[in-house]
Amino acid sequence: MNRRTQILRRAAELFQHQGVSGTSLEDIANAVGIKREGIYHYFKGRIDILLEVILPESRALAQSLKRILATNLNGEEKLHAAIENHLERFNPSYLEMSVALREDHFARNEDRLKELRGVWSDYESMWTELVEAGQKDGSYDPSLSPKAVVYGILGMCNWLSRWYDPAGPLTIDDIINTYFAMIFHGLKTGPAD
Amino acid sequence: MNRRTQILRRAAELFQHQGVSGTSLEDIANAVGIKREGIYHYFKGRIDILLEVILPESRALAQSLKRILATNLNGEEKLHAAIENHLERFNPSYLEMSVALREDHFARNEDRLKELRGVWSDYESMWTELVEAGQKDGSYDPSLSPKAVVYGILGMCNWLSRWYDPAGPLTIDDIINTYFAMIFHGLKTGPAD
Repeated sequence: MNRRTQILRRAAELFQHQGVSGTSLEDIANAVGIKREGIYHYFKGRIDILLEVILPESRALAQSLKRILATNLNGEEKLHAAIENHLERFNPSYLEMSVALREDHFARNEDRLKELRGVWSDYESMWTELVEAGQKDGSYDPSLSPKAVVYGILGMCNWLSRWYDPAGPLTIDDIINTYFAMIFHGLKTGPAD
Repeated sequence: MNRRTQILRRAAELFQHQGVSGTSLEDIANAVGIKREGIYHYFKGRIDILLEVILPESRALAQSLKRILATNLNGEEKLHAAIENHLERFNPSYLEMSVALREDHFARNEDRLKELRGVWSDYESMWTELVEAGQKDGSYDPSLSPKAVVYGILGMCNWLSRWYDPAGPLTIDDIINTYFAMIFHGLKTGPAD
């Protein structure tokens, strides 16, 4: 691991454990084993490190949802693929997803967070598109408010940043299957329908 | 409003807008229009103020879920009442719920947050009880993992702390109806079943 990657990795761990505002450049430097000044050789400050930890993962998430929307899958298949796309990212990139979603970075009025806010807002719009298309083609109940549905699905998925433990008993595959079943079929038993 | 209530109210607003760690006692004192020392007359510090903002609301939430579980309602009705109980609290107490849930206070190893962690952990256990009972009596699909189901429902509901705007177009009643429909029946259209 080169020095730059080392800084990003240690910073991601610290952000995840003690929050972004609870982590100083000093803490990051200590964790890497260099002096605080050494960080400035690679990054302008904490927000730049934060951005480099979470922006690539956020962009990749949005990019692959875009590809899912462009396929010929039906409403049920698209919903499954989109949930899978979101949740699978917690497995190899648990730290990055958790740092991206556990705290409300978007509430900060930082100019440099503008691109990040844009990526997540596009991501939300694509989800709304997916739900509206499914309502039009008869895959989903057309009486539900697409905005409320999207916030509900994203809330379920994003909340993993608060409780999911990669070493815990629930695997990402279990969670994908449970959430898809809940969102598409609901909690009601099949036979009772 | 007496001075104590005034401090709690201004603190809740600041915690909600700029996060707990981004809010100093100085900020709270300024918002109230008193000196920093004046706060110590009522509270030991920031964590005590935070606790008094969110603990009563958290306790009330858990208490009323306990009452719902003790009723003779069936699985569908209990689920509706429990979702309503959680979401309705965002209406009069938007600030308190938002401060309680937007940031991950439970990750802090603060001793004084122990009681708060206890209340939310009891709340989660009661939800698990509700789901398991509904699976037993045939109201809900027994094949789903109760833990994943509970985290999914709480994620949907708690995420309101990130996006819900009491002045926005979606009312709490719309959200209760949409989330109940999604969780109980799923997104699938009725006629397609």
